[in-house]
Amino acid sequence: MKQAKPNPIARRQWLTGTASALGAVGLGSWAGSASAQTAAAPAANAAPAAPAAAPKALPAYAAWKNPADLIVHSSSTLETRRAAFGTSVLTPGSQLYVRNNLPAPDAAILADRDAWTLSVEGVKQPRSLRLAELKTLGLETVATVLQCSGNGRGFFPSKPSGTPWTVGAAGCVLWSGVPLRNVVQALGGLEDGMLHITGTGGEKLPEGVDPLTVMVERSVPIKALGDALLAWEMNGEPLSLAHGGPLRLIVPGYQGVNNIKYIKRLAFTTVESKARIMSHGYRMTPVGAKAAPDQASVLEMGVKSWINGPLPEAGPLKEGLVQIHGVAFGGTQAIKGVEVSLDGGKNWYPARLVGPDLGRFAWRQFVLSVRLPVGNYTLASRATDDQGLVQPEQREENLSGYNNNSWRDHAVTITVA
Amino acid sequence: MKQAKPNPIARRQWLTGTASALGAVGLGSWAGSASAQTAAAPAANAAPAAPAAAPKALPAYAAWKNPADLIVHSSSTLETRRAAFGTSVLTPGSQLYVRNNLPAPDAAILADRDAWTLSVEGVKQPRSLRLAELKTLGLETVATVLQCSGNGRGFFPSKPSGTPWTVGAAGCVLWSGVPLRNVVQALGGLEDGMLHITGTGGEKLPEGVDPLTVMVERSVPIKALGDALLAWEMNGEPLSLAHGGPLRLIVPGYQGVNNIKYIKRLAFTTVESKARIMSHGYRMTPVGAKAAPDQASVLEMGVKSWINGPLPEAGPLKEGLVQIHGVAFGGTQAIKGVEVSLDGGKNWYPARLVGPDLGRFAWRQFVLSVRLPVGNYTLASRATDDQGLVQPEQREENLSGYNNNSWRDHAVTITVA
Repeated sequence: MKQAKPNPIARRQWLTGTASALGAVGLGSWAGSASAQTAAAPAANAAPAAPAAAPKALPAYAAWKNPADLIVHSSSTLETRRAAFGTSVLTPGSQLYVRNNLPAPDAAILADRDAWTLSVEGVKQPRSLRLAELKTLGLETVATVLQCSGNGRGFFPSKPSGTPWTVGAAGCVLWSGVPLRNVVQALGGLEDGMLHITGTGGEKLPEGVDPLTVMVERSVPIKALGDALLAWEMNGEPLSLAHGGPLRLIVPGYQGVNNIKYIKRLAFTTVESKARIMSHGYRMTPVGAKAAPDQASVLEMGVKSWINGPLPEAGPLKEGLVQIHGVAFGGTQAIKGVEVSLDGGKNWYPARLVGPDLGRFAWRQFVLSVRLPVGNYTLASRATDDQGLVQPEQREENLSGYNNNSWRDHAVTITVA
Repeated sequence: MKQAKPNPIARRQWLTGTASALGAVGLGSWAGSASAQTAAAPAANAAPAAPAAAPKALPAYAAWKNPADLIVHSSSTLETRRAAFGTSVLTPGSQLYVRNNLPAPDAAILADRDAWTLSVEGVKQPRSLRLAELKTLGLETVATVLQCSGNGRGFFPSKPSGTPWTVGAAGCVLWSGVPLRNVVQALGGLEDGMLHITGTGGEKLPEGVDPLTVMVERSVPIKALGDALLAWEMNGEPLSLAHGGPLRLIVPGYQGVNNIKYIKRLAFTTVESKARIMSHGYRMTPVGAKAAPDQASVLEMGVKSWINGPLPEAGPLKEGLVQIHGVAFGGTQAIKGVEVSLDGGKNWYPARLVGPDLGRFAWRQFVLSVRLPVGNYTLASRATDDQGLVQPEQREENLSGYNNNSWRDHAVTITVA
């Protein structure tokens, strides 16, 4: 992998002191992420006898994925390589990232998918339903961006603990399942006063510890009921273990952790889950503070975009036409437009959205066709959603490195030689 | 695999003599297709020592596909199982059918994708272009139904020679590449008077035979120029050898054979190709006649739909709600609506289109939610395109079993017990 060439614009800012912090971040974070990717290879979980430079092997539950497309940070954190993102509007399962908060359950849970049971509470007629029954209650297919809330953490100069994802803890995939509102209707409607949808994963919990400290249980606001889905299929295939099969709660537009895998219990509740992953995990904790339940939780995704090509690791380009392309999404809002800068944000040009529009929860591919003379270019993209909200220049600093949608952090510098 | 139960409606037609041919086809063809699929297992190309019931192995160039989803008719004909089609709006590559007219080229042609060259003729400035250059000329992503023109041949009672595909020689996939019109523009525009787009595949031809008798070269009308694409990516991944990588001509809305794999030459021409696959192959030859160039060629696809679930092979259903689902497409026209019949075509109910609309060349998933009491049901679907063209009841008879879009042929009979 080639290192990005020094960026003359950022360098000038650095030297003059104008926006120096941003300039340093633009350079330092990209280099940092590159070395983080390289450094990941010989880290923990590698086979003891493996040579230092060998990439870590895919874990067994994700062995069907394409190893060339993935960075294996650990057995529960796989990242899509930025260069592997295609120009299509969907991410194939074989290259989709994985982030598990607990070890994946035994594959035996997929042996009889239809026998999986989901307990539904907080409705007028609470009971357990088999997946076979859920399949009779309705059918919908929705495309959503699935993104780990820590995507972009690798760009934080504070180096928060946690996986240093750059852009590849995200993908856009199709889910098929039953709308959650159909299930509520079949069970007599909601109980009065319910404010949250609380989903509990079916992972096996370690013994001897308080379940609340380890269980994967998250609450999202009841307003998500209109869009939420219980999904058994992803991209046209039965949902894999790696992505939460046999049944996953999909909350379109919400950060990945809210899309509960192996969902066993779905409760409509008056209060948020008391599980630590909800009360203290995934909070927008100020730097220097401790996580606490009164800090904002990681819920709806912000408007965001980044460029997937050309990338510096492909080496210098030839002078001439270039198709600059990337992805843009607006969380629960559709994308209205994307602008691309060639000079690190001084000038912006409207990009063209390409490919079919898979709906407001999906990402759009964008492209800017430009003729580039010899030189260095810092390519950035900036998305606007259909409410007029513009992707910010700066990330929101926080202890754990969540919700990074800074366009500057995601810029890349390329050379035309 | 369970045999479909006798269809009371078709049987009555048979007994009374009303539409007897259709009634017989409705029964006979489904049973025929089921036995054809079963019979395929021990047929030619199986390993000599394999037990009679063992399915044929996937050929090496398609070994990455999911064998559970595919019927291996031969090393160059793989069919998606009807039950494997998901309820998503796209077909994953791992389950997409394959039909090669010649053996796939050596995988070495993918070693340096960007070095692949395409010769373009019939333009003001004809020349060869490397794939790397094509990638600079534009970027578009389009979803199309890819379908072998022989899909549905297995339903012809005349048992035409050729692979007895039922529904699985089709899929809906995303292609990314450069619009062909961009390439024409970059080469100075079309020469005057060009009437056809003629594509030539890059397969290695057997020696000692007239190339025209074996080469894969097809012509489509020049009107397809507005939509045609030179694609290097399918479903977000670099185009595989099985599907024509590194470069394939995509003619949206046209039968599969016109989407030339491994494309080496793209010529705008005043006359159709003289290759036998164009002059005599893929013609709508009347039964009892010989193929001839004056017969209609297999070009644009007709409006078509079929049901993918529930299917009889899953066994009897329980009484209650059922989500009847399937796919519908209109060739070059968008789908306006789909109706579903529970009684073999006597009564029709409007189905709901589900999932994102990927554009007029893609298929739509449809669903009808019904509560079915105990009994037998012959499920049929009938699509209408946005020009008001309705999927026909009957196939157009022809020697080779092409273009079967009969809704009756595609009906299935299920039991609720």
